[in-house]
Amino acid sequence: MSNFRFYQRASRAFNDHPTLSKTLVVAAAFSGGSIVAYADSKPQAIDSVVPSDGAADPKKKIVVLGTGWAGTSFLKNLKNPSYEVQVVSPRNFFAFTPLLPSVTVGTVEARSIVEPVRNIVRKKNVHVGFFEAECYKIDAKNKRVYCRSTGDVDLNGNAEFVVDYDYLVVAMGARANTFNTPGVVENCHFLKELEDALRIRRTVIDCFEKASLPNLTDEERRRILHFVVVGGGPTGVEFAAELHDFVNEDLVKLYPTVKDLVKITLLEAGEHILNMFDKRITAFAEDKFKRDGIDVRLGSMVTKVSDKEISTREVKNGEVSSVPYGMVVWSTGIGTRPEIMDFMKQISQANRRVLATDEWLRVEGTESIYALGDCATINQRKVMEDISAIFNKADKDKSGTLTVKEFQEVIHDVIERYPQVELYLKSMQMKNIADLLKAAKTDDAKESVELNIEEFKKALSQVDSQMKNLPATAQVAAQQGAYLAKCFNRMEECERNPEGPLRFRGEGRHRFRPFR
Amino acid sequence: MSNFRFYQRASRAFNDHPTLSKTLVVAAAFSGGSIVAYADSKPQAIDSVVPSDGAADPKKKIVVLGTGWAGTSFLKNLKNPSYEVQVVSPRNFFAFTPLLPSVTVGTVEARSIVEPVRNIVRKKNVHVGFFEAECYKIDAKNKRVYCRSTGDVDLNGNAEFVVDYDYLVVAMGARANTFNTPGVVENCHFLKELEDALRIRRTVIDCFEKASLPNLTDEERRRILHFVVVGGGPTGVEFAAELHDFVNEDLVKLYPTVKDLVKITLLEAGEHILNMFDKRITAFAEDKFKRDGIDVRLGSMVTKVSDKEISTREVKNGEVSSVPYGMVVWSTGIGTRPEIMDFMKQISQANRRVLATDEWLRVEGTESIYALGDCATINQRKVMEDISAIFNKADKDKSGTLTVKEFQEVIHDVIERYPQVELYLKSMQMKNIADLLKAAKTDDAKESVELNIEEFKKALSQVDSQMKNLPATAQVAAQQGAYLAKCFNRMEECERNPEGPLRFRGEGRHRFRPFR
Repeated sequence: MSNFRFYQRASRAFNDHPTLSKTLVVAAAFSGGSIVAYADSKPQAIDSVVPSDGAADPKKKIVVLGTGWAGTSFLKNLKNPSYEVQVVSPRNFFAFTPLLPSVTVGTVEARSIVEPVRNIVRKKNVHVGFFEAECYKIDAKNKRVYCRSTGDVDLNGNAEFVVDYDYLVVAMGARANTFNTPGVVENCHFLKELEDALRIRRTVIDCFEKASLPNLTDEERRRILHFVVVGGGPTGVEFAAELHDFVNEDLVKLYPTVKDLVKITLLEAGEHILNMFDKRITAFAEDKFKRDGIDVRLGSMVTKVSDKEISTREVKNGEVSSVPYGMVVWSTGIGTRPEIMDFMKQISQANRRVLATDEWLRVEGTESIYALGDCATINQRKVMEDISAIFNKADKDKSGTLTVKEFQEVIHDVIERYPQVELYLKSMQMKNIADLLKAAKTDDAKESVELNIEEFKKALSQVDSQMKNLPATAQVAAQQGAYLAKCFNRMEECERNPEGPLRFRGEGRHRFRPFR
Repeated sequence: MSNFRFYQRASRAFNDHPTLSKTLVVAAAFSGGSIVAYADSKPQAIDSVVPSDGAADPKKKIVVLGTGWAGTSFLKNLKNPSYEVQVVSPRNFFAFTPLLPSVTVGTVEARSIVEPVRNIVRKKNVHVGFFEAECYKIDAKNKRVYCRSTGDVDLNGNAEFVVDYDYLVVAMGARANTFNTPGVVENCHFLKELEDALRIRRTVIDCFEKASLPNLTDEERRRILHFVVVGGGPTGVEFAAELHDFVNEDLVKLYPTVKDLVKITLLEAGEHILNMFDKRITAFAEDKFKRDGIDVRLGSMVTKVSDKEISTREVKNGEVSSVPYGMVVWSTGIGTRPEIMDFMKQISQANRRVLATDEWLRVEGTESIYALGDCATINQRKVMEDISAIFNKADKDKSGTLTVKEFQEVIHDVIERYPQVELYLKSMQMKNIADLLKAAKTDDAKESVELNIEEFKKALSQVDSQMKNLPATAQVAAQQGAYLAKCFNRMEECERNPEGPLRFRGEGRHRFRPFR
């Protein structure tokens, strides 16, 4: 199916760079071979190039699931033409999600924040195919994914298909987390997808139009114009602010008769909004909202959402109340997608909250599956898990004690492998690890810093307290995508000359530096 | 409800033009009084103005149904502040419909072709209220319209309401005409509304994405990429051309593997496309489409549309065939909306195809209802219907014969009242009406042009053949809206000094010149 473009490119390459052509042509003979359900569609226009004898290795096939921040960043950064890439995503575009709150009020046009995936990949030197479909099952054992076409066009029962992979990159993101609160799915808007933003935009205007109709009591108008935002994270806060500005700068002019009936409420179960940020930011936002007349209700848990009322319980005193609303936007963080849940069961991660990977973004318990973005977290290795291995590796003379000098030889590898060490040193305001080791010695022995295994354990015992999960942000996802693409770009090179830290438990070095 | 803005304006007017303020303030006391279901919402900010003793006439209430070309043009041109206007339309925006075909392919962004109605009316000196609702019943007897709110927001059973009027302006447009062809409503796209255009845009891309999936045969891909346009009028032709360009300029780059499977077919039941235009335009378009590879099939009637096949019968030989398709756009002209049908029954127009008005756009058989745009046609008065009245009016000396001189005195009124007369003269290449009268005389009497009633009838007998219905175009609708608004602007003035032609059947003159 995708052979045509490849041949075109190959023949172009032939003309431009005669030395390149051989490799490309050879590879072309195998492109498409690793997809099970690939339609056998005629390679068109095979004129100037002839497939070779097939002696070379077939291209390794990378299947990418998802075209969000992580998936798109991976695609943009992948430059090694020795892979064949197949993207499967229910959306044929990448959306610049931090601007979704602006799209809800029309400040930014939807078209301005999307980039077609086919546009992103069509000029690359790597062959990238795209299927608009959702993956509903990952079969790690047989290295294949099951997909289903979305959308309206009828495919005569051919909507499902299977794609094989050599490497799988899972970047499917997350879904909105409802905490199983009754009525949320039925009655609330989310703000994760572009379609959500457009739907919110229509609903806001709808509410103003409805409130302007005759026959309604003022009480009813107030209900319709009561906008509730659940969740005081960045998305909820941003949306509340945008909505406030939209109402006060634009809608008051168009709907002067109902403008005084509008109310915006922000419900946050925690003690503060934006609690992941610096306290000054929180204080500023809370203060600004107060001045703007946005009713911020902290410590308020939503217990139920009916078609016209939202019920809350105060965390402090358990007080229960209900308020009528016109529109609710639910933005309380992310939950795991059902396909990911199913996959986690397969690989014995069923009791985890989210897909766990190692520091190289490889899914734990699998060989060739990588996961990045909001559908995964890096399960950082604890220093204390490996403490004996580290000690043994560092104790080169096998004396049973570790000198500062001995330790200094592995220190870079330790810091690279266990980033929490550096964070701990920083938090303790220590210059270097020698200070840490010294601190573990009893006072009288400070001068001769030589530790046995027990002292070494004691020295590093607090280090793991500094482990932190990365936030589920667009930035982290994009960085992970770029990181993984660069690993793939240099896969063979780093196989030969590993550039990662020492393997404390095994032999040799890791191929790549871990993701930071 | 709408009092607030009015008072604001009134108080502004008071400051700016002291002489105006009295009238405006007096009128304000009554605004909103004529709407039955108007909510009794607090007049806010009554500070500088005080309602007078109520001795003046209440404002006349104009209700406008629809915000298309006709309705919007009426609103834009209405300048007489002695009316209170209430607009009822399911769409709170005006859409520049000639650009809809461009929206289907993204050449023009939807946002660029709409104008919010509330924006259009908010700076006017005439008070205009807006309800986003559809009128589902006109009650001409009681001068009220029954309306129903559209959209998602639940109104607790208050979605229906009634609006009273003094004058009703019906500008609801038309719906797509399916000629009751089975399967059209279920399986075809129309191209009348903005939402239609956006849906088509999504479906075109959907078809390309679906055709790019694995597992499909080429036959199936060809089906999905077969775009059928039914109707060779301006909209269908424009859409086919836009789609062709979109496919060949943009989509071939993004979907190179399936580009050769695309086909566009245009089905036209008549002998030519664009048959309302000059033959050279038709020939050019047919020729251009042929070169572009658009398959134009003339004389092809659609008999049925199933979910995957469209069936046609050739007009010439009755041959029946079916072709598989991916998307059908149905654009075969306009039909009457069910609310209009219902209204036509009320006013004994049930056996007509569309709402009939007189030349002043007033609905025949009603007193204060006007209809314009695609939901109405002007039922032009035949000269032959009024021939005796014209003769009598012109025959001032009641001699039983008409001299050229006598006739010349009423000629301007005749031409104004019966535009077909002028068209007939033009088509017969006659300079003036004297030629027409002369032509009716037997050869030997040509010199003394004096006609009796029979000769007069004979002279004008062919004139009515030149009557033509106005085309259902945006331009005509807009002109009618502007015309009617100007009539309303000058209603009182023209009541006193009628400027229209003589009433041949009655006494005096018509208030306004008829719409041309």
